[in-house]
Amino acid sequence: VEDQNQLRLAGEFTQKNGARLLRGGIFKMRTDPASFQGLGLQALEWISSLKKELSMPLVTEITDARHIEPLLPVVDMFQVGTRNMYNYALLKELGKTKTPVLLKRGFSALAEEWLLAAEYVLKEGNPNVVLCERGIRTFEKATRNTLDLGIVPWVKARSDLPVLVDPSHGTGVSALVPAMCWAAAAAGADGIMVEVHPDPAKAKSDGYQALSFEAFGQMMAQLRQVVKAMGRSLD
Amino acid sequence: VEDQNQLRLAGEFTQKNGARLLRGGIFKMRTDPASFQGLGLQALEWISSLKKELSMPLVTEITDARHIEPLLPVVDMFQVGTRNMYNYALLKELGKTKTPVLLKRGFSALAEEWLLAAEYVLKEGNPNVVLCERGIRTFEKATRNTLDLGIVPWVKARSDLPVLVDPSHGTGVSALVPAMCWAAAAAGADGIMVEVHPDPAKAKSDGYQALSFEAFGQMMAQLRQVVKAMGRSLD
Amino acid sequence: VEDQNQLRLAGEFTQKNGARLLRGGIFKMRTDPASFQGLGLQALEWISSLKKELSMPLVTEITDARHIEPLLPVVDMFQVGTRNMYNYALLKELGKTKTPVLLKRGFSALAEEWLLAAEYVLKEGNPNVVLCERGIRTFEKATRNTLDLGIVPWVKARSDLPVLVDPSHGTGVSALVPAMCWAAAAAGADGIMVEVHPDPAKAKSDGYQALSFEAFGQMMAQLRQVVKAMGRSLD
Amino acid sequence: VEDQNQLRLAGEFTQKNGARLLRGGIFKMRTDPASFQGLGLQALEWISSLKKELSMPLVTEITDARHIEPLLPVVDMFQVGTRNMYNYALLKELGKTKTPVLLKRGFSALAEEWLLAAEYVLKEGNPNVVLCERGIRTFEKATRNTLDLGIVPWVKARSDLPVLVDPSHGTGVSALVPAMCWAAAAAGADGIMVEVHPDPAKAKSDGYQALSFEAFGQMMAQLRQVVKAMGRSLD
Repeated sequence: VEDQNQLRLAGEFTQKNGARLLRGGIFKMRTDPASFQGLGLQALEWISSLKKELSMPLVTEITDARHIEPLLPVVDMFQVGTRNMYNYALLKELGKTKTPVLLKRGFSALAEEWLLAAEYVLKEGNPNVVLCERGIRTFEKATRNTLDLGIVPWVKARSDLPVLVDPSHGTGVSALVPAMCWAAAAAGADGIMVEVHPDPAKAKSDGYQALSFEAFGQMMAQLRQVVKAMGRSLD
Repeated sequence: VEDQNQLRLAGEFTQKNGARLLRGGIFKMRTDPASFQGLGLQALEWISSLKKELSMPLVTEITDARHIEPLLPVVDMFQVGTRNMYNYALLKELGKTKTPVLLKRGFSALAEEWLLAAEYVLKEGNPNVVLCERGIRTFEKATRNTLDLGIVPWVKARSDLPVLVDPSHGTGVSALVPAMCWAAAAAGADGIMVEVHPDPAKAKSDGYQALSFEAFGQMMAQLRQVVKAMGRSLD
Repeated sequence: VEDQNQLRLAGEFTQKNGARLLRGGIFKMRTDPASFQGLGLQALEWISSLKKELSMPLVTEITDARHIEPLLPVVDMFQVGTRNMYNYALLKELGKTKTPVLLKRGFSALAEEWLLAAEYVLKEGNPNVVLCERGIRTFEKATRNTLDLGIVPWVKARSDLPVLVDPSHGTGVSALVPAMCWAAAAAGADGIMVEVHPDPAKAKSDGYQALSFEAFGQMMAQLRQVVKAMGRSLD
Repeated sequence: VEDQNQLRLAGEFTQKNGARLLRGGIFKMRTDPASFQGLGLQALEWISSLKKELSMPLVTEITDARHIEPLLPVVDMFQVGTRNMYNYALLKELGKTKTPVLLKRGFSALAEEWLLAAEYVLKEGNPNVVLCERGIRTFEKATRNTLDLGIVPWVKARSDLPVLVDPSHGTGVSALVPAMCWAAAAAGADGIMVEVHPDPAKAKSDGYQALSFEAFGQMMAQLRQVVKAMGRSLD
């Protein structure tokens, strides 16, 4: 989330094309403390007004247990990012709410550790955990991360939790995102997360990996075919 | 290839279910010099007689430039295995033939290096190179390798060479192979290579990753649907 | 820390052999929520009484910003473990104290990211950050992690912060620990952290990598020689 | 090896400073077939005349079994490079000679696989194998490879073969090479291999990692101290 207008455009467009959740970064995890850190509470207001307008549920990233309380009334799903997968103190606090938790895999987490991290939430009494594969760190430099689709059927065989795939972070290259969305569906993923931006070249962070509206529309059209071939549906 | 009967059964069955190439390991690359090293020239005779019977082209692995000449009359495609991707002396010699070369990606090769290895064959005058992604080495232990499907569209954008995917070696776990075959097709691969064994539990090498006949048949039925959804066909 | 007696023995012995800091795990980060999680506040009492007796400064791991306040009076150094290196919310809170922070490198953190994580503490006004290399995740399975000693001179060329090396976690194999302590000193590290246990075979966690008292003594004797050869001293 | 004069300068200088082997790349392994591939037989003549003049034994890289015979009379040690560690056909042929083989670890080889590769030479009857750790591929980008010094004591505990360390390739950054030479000695390595160039900035390949004469001299002076502290000697 960078400004209110950009947010509205992206929200409306993606909803028309089949998106089911609105995700807005309010506080942004950044490796460098000098980088753009998100807009904080100002964005929260914009997002929650757009959420009502579009009647779309809102997902936002949580990085600090002390933010849970103020966000609880407006947020429909908390996202725990890849760098916080091992933040067990945070996971335990989220386990004490009933709000769904989107738990991204740590970029160097063993799949085994990822399932155990989910246990930290589940054990506290919150059964609403959704897993999200988002690429792992390897020696390969052609892609920002290596999207580990083989882990999707591995997790599905061991857990009843839904599994999403995030090809935007998983590859870091927008040209590869559509093919990886289709592959994720064929691998058995229950959903995908993709970054969309009205003008990817101008995005303040992660622009290189965001889809334009046009590319998103084309991706979704083909995705419907693959999902149907797998005997499932987008609706 | 372990014995003549096992070979015939696997060849007949897979052909009936849509396989287009017969692959038989005559000399086998093994990490441990004390392991089963393949049957050598005896297997060559069996394979070449089965090849005629089934009218299927024969692929075999080549590990030594001095084997090219005796194999040339019977082999329809030379496979360069993951451990020989950097064996430029071998690649150059294969470049002097016109026999197609199936070049597997080194399990720690940058995609860039893989394309450059193909150049070693192409530069010598042999244009018939087929690439095969077969998984890379990462920290993850749930799978034997991490199948890098994101590299498929990356390569397709940079090269006209066909790209296959080998989910058997790519995951090392037979239960994950079907989902990865479907995902490979959705990612844009031009073909897949899978290991099939009449009785995977009894296989002398790599049994854990081979599909039974039944699993192969089910995988192929679903694969047809995904390939069709992608606007392509298996035939 | 498992019991009071074990703690006293290890503290006295290592001090006699040159140890300069007492490290006791009060709350233990565990991947599996069902594992031994540390003794909590009971251990805090034991440790702080031993600390007075031996006049050794106390280091303990911090995993939750809400624990800073109760620990502040007794703790001389907070350790941020490998899984919390990206926990910027915690790092910022530690930056508001003046207590030294031992920042372990994330097991998949780029060295660049590690220095930026240190910035999160420094920027808040706490200049007392000590870095600690503790091994990274790679494909190699002979050791639990791959100790990245090359990063020691890399960091020393870019930062004035002291750099420690932890060969116990870095290799996960006690037999390799002494050689890696000596190598760390020769690489220019400012100190080492090693796990010592009166009876490594009986340790409740990480026993496989702990040194016995005897092995610790022999390691330290040789370490003095290497440190001296490097023109430095242990005192 | 790029020209005769450069070779002589480097040979004379390093010998005076304690070098014991002359290594000259005659045929060079290059990832890109369009890169500088070494000077071939012309360099062989220069090197063999310098070898006589300096009375230093000659090491050269071998990439093709068919080159063994012409090189046998002049070469004192064959180096098998990191990309050929799995080239078992080549290793078997070298096993049929008595010439020592310097076997570099594959940049993604498990230490276990490296020892098994050595077995391919040993089993054929050639007991003269020297191992060389030269860095492995990891996610870290600060260094070209991650030098795995922990594997040195691991190998020493399992094998009687000598183990060298190559910090030039192991780090790919000349500023880090001296510290890694000292660390290798402290880790128990039996020797080190370093690249030296009269004018590193002008080197046609790998210049970034080569030491200048001055840096080499300073490194050797400190190395003597570390080796002595370890109870060994350079002579």
